[in-house]
Amino acid sequence: MTPTATTRAYRRLSVEARRRQLLESALGLFAHRAPEEVNLDDVAEAAGVSRPLVYRYFPGGKQQLYEAALRSAADELEQCFAEPPQGPLTQRLSRALDRYLAFVDQHDTGFSALLQGGSVVETSRTTAIVDGVRRAAAENILAHLDVPEPGPRLRMTVRMWITAVEAASLIWLDEDKQPPLDELRDMLVEQFMAVLVTTAGRDEQTAGVVRWALALETPEGPVGGLARRVLPVVSDAAHLL
Amino acid sequence: MTPTATTRAYRRLSVEARRRQLLESALGLFAHRAPEEVNLDDVAEAAGVSRPLVYRYFPGGKQQLYEAALRSAADELEQCFAEPPQGPLTQRLSRALDRYLAFVDQHDTGFSALLQGGSVVETSRTTAIVDGVRRAAAENILAHLDVPEPGPRLRMTVRMWITAVEAASLIWLDEDKQPPLDELRDMLVEQFMAVLVTTAGRDEQTAGVVRWALALETPEGPVGGLARRVLPVVSDAAHLL
Repeated sequence: MTPTATTRAYRRLSVEARRRQLLESALGLFAHRAPEEVNLDDVAEAAGVSRPLVYRYFPGGKQQLYEAALRSAADELEQCFAEPPQGPLTQRLSRALDRYLAFVDQHDTGFSALLQGGSVVETSRTTAIVDGVRRAAAENILAHLDVPEPGPRLRMTVRMWITAVEAASLIWLDEDKQPPLDELRDMLVEQFMAVLVTTAGRDEQTAGVVRWALALETPEGPVGGLARRVLPVVSDAAHLL
Repeated sequence: MTPTATTRAYRRLSVEARRRQLLESALGLFAHRAPEEVNLDDVAEAAGVSRPLVYRYFPGGKQQLYEAALRSAADELEQCFAEPPQGPLTQRLSRALDRYLAFVDQHDTGFSALLQGGSVVETSRTTAIVDGVRRAAAENILAHLDVPEPGPRLRMTVRMWITAVEAASLIWLDEDKQPPLDELRDMLVEQFMAVLVTTAGRDEQTAGVVRWALALETPEGPVGGLARRVLPVVSDAAHLL
């Protein structure tokens, strides 16, 4: 293809399609490099367009492009949590975590750079976008717990677990993606149930959620497996009861 | 006191004492205001010195002062975790959390601004200082668990819990310091034991830690209380075993 043909080809995209294409190219770059190591020439090259064209769509330069790419990544992440309210809670959570962890795996460097903070492109706006994802995740989980008005203890438990999941994702990336994703997912699901049960000891509403969730579980499910593996470990502690 | 007397009085401090005094004044201001809302005039006024004197000690201006104050706050925070390796694990953890949560209470606004990110004074250096505190806390806890070489699952569990504690602190500040600190501390201790027990189901090393930790507990301690409160909630789930 001659340069002229390329130019003509890329001019044919609509404004919205072009914007999306540039964002996707940017996201692809930001996913695997620190924001410091991405410049607009890279984005133009990855999208097969000229630098001035990138600037026409994103006059604010790299910062604007980064924020737009982050916004689009945030939308994608929020989609991870969408799950029909059917079946055992641990099954729903496992499916959502599978999607979330696949996203982390696919955007490894960008995910670390974003959440570890201190990056040159971090602003109150990027922080707000990340917080929005956390809030959406919390709302989504709380909606699955089937309580009309979740109280402070239940909300705090869910939000703490979400932060712990983020921490686990960063540690996982930092430790060369070990353990395997399936095991990490199961660990996170088990921890969710464990902290929920713990809060149930102090909060009647959470106790109701736990009773409802356990009734949906099967012996082959994650809670049954966890209980059978943990009981022998704690069985010597009968002196505490 | 006349201005001259003040001037003479503050000239008498040694360089190190003066530096410490300026840092303490800065930390006091950064503790209760967003970094954006603190300027060097405020620091000079709080310390009872002139603005040029502040600049003489911190020629990098507010950014340098902020980082130095943060460094000193980080040292103070790391002290919170120092605890003799005696008695039940939950007691040691409770005492460390009491100190940590008192610090959060006393530095509320600054603590939120620091950890919520996106602040104008946040740099890779401030991020590194905060990460250093997290790492120190993890090392400290792992040292208390009495295993010479903690494996990846045990380390991940401890680091996830530390992040969850941070999240809980931010939520607590955000929710007008509710629930009371004693209850928050007990919740955090219980969650620590819960996630440790959960990981014990997958990791022989953690199982050893749990057996050892439970043997040190008394029926009146947090684990006994938790077990007695939680058992009635999960007793209907015998079908899972």
